[in-house]
Amino acid sequence: MSCSKKVDLSGVFPPITTPFQENEEIAWDKLGENMDKWNNIAFGGYVVHGSNGEYPYLSADEKIEMVRRVKEMAPKGKVIMAGAGCESTRDTIDMCNKMADAGADCVLVITPSYYKGAMTSAALQQHYTKVADASSVPVVLYSVPANTTIDLAPDAIISLSKHPNIIGLKESGGDISKIGNLLHKTQRDEFQILAGSAGFLLPSLMLGAVGGVCALANVLGDQVVQLHALYKEGKMDEALELQRKLIAPNGMVTRGHGVPGLKATLDWYGYYGGPLRSPLQPVSQSAADIIKQSFNASGFNP
Amino acid sequence: MSCSKKVDLSGVFPPITTPFQENEEIAWDKLGENMDKWNNIAFGGYVVHGSNGEYPYLSADEKIEMVRRVKEMAPKGKVIMAGAGCESTRDTIDMCNKMADAGADCVLVITPSYYKGAMTSAALQQHYTKVADASSVPVVLYSVPANTTIDLAPDAIISLSKHPNIIGLKESGGDISKIGNLLHKTQRDEFQILAGSAGFLLPSLMLGAVGGVCALANVLGDQVVQLHALYKEGKMDEALELQRKLIAPNGMVTRGHGVPGLKATLDWYGYYGGPLRSPLQPVSQSAADIIKQSFNASGFNP
Amino acid sequence: MSCSKKVDLSGVFPPITTPFQENEEIAWDKLGENMDKWNNIAFGGYVVHGSNGEYPYLSADEKIEMVRRVKEMAPKGKVIMAGAGCESTRDTIDMCNKMADAGADCVLVITPSYYKGAMTSAALQQHYTKVADASSVPVVLYSVPANTTIDLAPDAIISLSKHPNIIGLKESGGDISKIGNLLHKTQRDEFQILAGSAGFLLPSLMLGAVGGVCALANVLGDQVVQLHALYKEGKMDEALELQRKLIAPNGMVTRGHGVPGLKATLDWYGYYGGPLRSPLQPVSQSAADIIKQSFNASGFNP
Amino acid sequence: MSCSKKVDLSGVFPPITTPFQENEEIAWDKLGENMDKWNNIAFGGYVVHGSNGEYPYLSADEKIEMVRRVKEMAPKGKVIMAGAGCESTRDTIDMCNKMADAGADCVLVITPSYYKGAMTSAALQQHYTKVADASSVPVVLYSVPANTTIDLAPDAIISLSKHPNIIGLKESGGDISKIGNLLHKTQRDEFQILAGSAGFLLPSLMLGAVGGVCALANVLGDQVVQLHALYKEGKMDEALELQRKLIAPNGMVTRGHGVPGLKATLDWYGYYGGPLRSPLQPVSQSAADIIKQSFNASGFNP
Repeated sequence: MSCSKKVDLSGVFPPITTPFQENEEIAWDKLGENMDKWNNIAFGGYVVHGSNGEYPYLSADEKIEMVRRVKEMAPKGKVIMAGAGCESTRDTIDMCNKMADAGADCVLVITPSYYKGAMTSAALQQHYTKVADASSVPVVLYSVPANTTIDLAPDAIISLSKHPNIIGLKESGGDISKIGNLLHKTQRDEFQILAGSAGFLLPSLMLGAVGGVCALANVLGDQVVQLHALYKEGKMDEALELQRKLIAPNGMVTRGHGVPGLKATLDWYGYYGGPLRSPLQPVSQSAADIIKQSFNASGFNP
Repeated sequence: MSCSKKVDLSGVFPPITTPFQENEEIAWDKLGENMDKWNNIAFGGYVVHGSNGEYPYLSADEKIEMVRRVKEMAPKGKVIMAGAGCESTRDTIDMCNKMADAGADCVLVITPSYYKGAMTSAALQQHYTKVADASSVPVVLYSVPANTTIDLAPDAIISLSKHPNIIGLKESGGDISKIGNLLHKTQRDEFQILAGSAGFLLPSLMLGAVGGVCALANVLGDQVVQLHALYKEGKMDEALELQRKLIAPNGMVTRGHGVPGLKATLDWYGYYGGPLRSPLQPVSQSAADIIKQSFNASGFNP
Repeated sequence: MSCSKKVDLSGVFPPITTPFQENEEIAWDKLGENMDKWNNIAFGGYVVHGSNGEYPYLSADEKIEMVRRVKEMAPKGKVIMAGAGCESTRDTIDMCNKMADAGADCVLVITPSYYKGAMTSAALQQHYTKVADASSVPVVLYSVPANTTIDLAPDAIISLSKHPNIIGLKESGGDISKIGNLLHKTQRDEFQILAGSAGFLLPSLMLGAVGGVCALANVLGDQVVQLHALYKEGKMDEALELQRKLIAPNGMVTRGHGVPGLKATLDWYGYYGGPLRSPLQPVSQSAADIIKQSFNASGFNP
Repeated sequence: MSCSKKVDLSGVFPPITTPFQENEEIAWDKLGENMDKWNNIAFGGYVVHGSNGEYPYLSADEKIEMVRRVKEMAPKGKVIMAGAGCESTRDTIDMCNKMADAGADCVLVITPSYYKGAMTSAALQQHYTKVADASSVPVVLYSVPANTTIDLAPDAIISLSKHPNIIGLKESGGDISKIGNLLHKTQRDEFQILAGSAGFLLPSLMLGAVGGVCALANVLGDQVVQLHALYKEGKMDEALELQRKLIAPNGMVTRGHGVPGLKATLDWYGYYGGPLRSPLQPVSQSAADIIKQSFNASGFNP
């Protein structure tokens, strides 16, 4: 295990999409073009291989190469958080260290979920403890029940927060009470909580979260960063107004239409969204219209 | 339909429990004793026949009599919000008007839920529209998926918020993004949103909710009211500290141990909790210990 | 408690619909017309106030009157099984005895379900034991997770099957393994299992069920009775062919389109289906077409 | 695409476990010992890399090597069905062809499930069509909602059953009506349905299924094969008696205690169960006792 190298997770992190060519190969040039734009925004860093990166569809080699390139392209000081969770503990450990070698500053480790009945709190605690013991970079817990149906329990998180190599949590379940309770119970410098969506970023910040991993920041990076800044500056009325406006568009590119919705919106906003890997399918024209309408209704035009 | 008599829902409302004797008959004297204590707290009013009132176990006559008595015992100016939702539209309308006649200032109408597959947004909109058209007092929508598995959809709520006799929503699902979005989309004076739990009261207030219907307020009425007051006075640091401390105890008497947990805690705090109506069973001794421990850990001793 | 008066549940029972006029009042004349037709079919009896009877929308007086009339109109020897389940134990007991007084031979008691978290096996066992102790006619357990989200657990059922006044189970969950296991574990004459749908009637009979409560039998009474008869006569190939043909149409009037689908089909087949009580809404024209197509595709034309 | 090489799926297939050493490496010698025992049982063949094989925890190389060895050790004529499903279409195609090269006679392809909201029937149909177009051996569809929360819809299955390289379905959802309906709608020689559990094997066979993929057959291979044989010989009473006895033990090693329960039982019955790959944990002593008790209660002693 590494010494407890502290990584600062404060700020907004876009969980970046993986751009593909028509033949579903990674479009490295398009990744570069997107990065050029994102690099102009005051992000805390980048999440590579979050759910929005279609990471379950990437090979190990692709995952490594992508982290290597993002690290290279990102300005100095930006935190690279790399998704490294696999179903087995041994594969997860292996991937954590590969991500570290490729340049990741920390790893984001999703709950295993295939054997749902067996993923008890005890099993998950053991899993994360072994992973954190063996990972050469700090571990961020990742609970995303919408995809896994596994909600990492508060008691497990509180217990794991004491591990010197577990530095935080990305909470995507959207239960603000859970976030508030965890912040109350893990009041030590080293444990940092990140909201898993722009939809509840401000309430999370107000309760003590340090930042957010927000799909919406791929598209509306400036606005999500501004929300964080308004909060830090104590401009609460403006922050609230902006938070409330962001929720509906955010819903479009997360729960509503997922990665296909996000990629369509990227294209619309001048980024490269591009094709998806099958079995994901592009959004229909009518869905695209609804998404645009929602962004427009909140005043966010490209 | 009544004219759009505005009822002010701001503040904290305890959804009061129904006290029973050992033989499961309503203990009217104990209700009076509890009311005497609650009347000393700066509540906005009372919810009678919310989920915590074991209302599905009460006869129509009991429901009416209880509202009549609470109205009589409550200080002038306290809002009496009475649960009136039934499975059918006709029964709901009938109950709304009986509650009004008994003294209710407004009615809280839960989503029908038995025929789950058929409770589409369209069906629910039609239901609420007919109810609001016919109710002699204003209607508050009530969405509580933990009990009904029906989550009243944002579009339905936004549409219903335009009805002159629908004045608000009690949202118990705990999805702060939904609350934020609804507040953004229903920005008119007449539509008031109430957090359905003390667990997310402060974030809801910050986004624009006017108050909360909080089971925990049965027991920790002063503290929940204080949370609301701190927010109103702009003392955000103190408010946050208090909010975070309330979450774990709140979880004990809501999701964790439900009405049995709440009644046991009432007894512990000097109120009358008393027996439950079967099939509800009292909490076990070990559960009672866990509940006490949680209240104590947050510094709330009777 | 009554002595253990045995009631024979073998055979097919339609859970009859409740006919309404346009103003949602019960159309007693139409009930009579439907009964005249159903009385010509070799049913084991009738279920009054099952889910298909819109029983959550009926008043206590309506429920009693309907059982009284069905008893009167049914040929001698037909078993009248009346839905009597309420949320509280005391209301359920009261309703059981009212149903008995109105002529019910036995009562069908659904699991209480509002306080989902509290409806443990222990709570449900206590509920059913108290009800069976106090009911003047035998009790049939009723588990229908699609409406209640409560699946009465095998251990609870096996334990309750030993009660002298609990004579059977209507199992609507569709888990044939559960049915098989229960039949293995409750091998005594007095406990009778009824399939809760025509969709798995034959497999249930083959494992030892005595019959079925089948929504489809409202419409295709002769065919469902024939399926039972073919099985009893050992004509397995014909039985299998018929069973397989019935599944798709059955799905249309159960999970697919519910009571609205069933009532539309009744109208089509020359029975009186008629309006529903709000908030239930009639099926759309396109849904009606799909239902007809499914019945036609299986060769069942009115 | 291969020509439509017919593979006969009739019979009982154990989805074999993957034996591990204490260090979690595959114990190839123990695999050989288990195979020696299983080869004495009249199975139709073997499923390698079903859910019980801990396949999400195996590397691609391990998966290939394991199929190669099982093929080598199995008697001539036994069908080797190899799990080949991955999250992406391209990875699935690649794995199908690797499995074929390693000796698989057909491939079992689970529904992708990570992006739950996007796995519509249309997306899944496109996925399976592309896979079947490109796979060099026939494809068997695999729906297992307990692990994936995705239930492959009847319409999708019926449509896919027409593809010349899709020869069957392993249905693990346990909905006997779905199985009956599918058998009615896919009455052509080429489409073969396999029950996904011994818990509903006989009802499935009676409705027209050709066999089963049964976790229980790892342990009680003779008995599950005998159940199939009794059915084929028309000895229905004996078959029913045996089916009913198998359900409770089957529940122990499937839903009840999963792969850990199955491996513990294998050890008890003289096979090699052995350790699990983390995060799976061995069953507790009390769980092991309950499992043994259930097998004993049904008369199945090692």
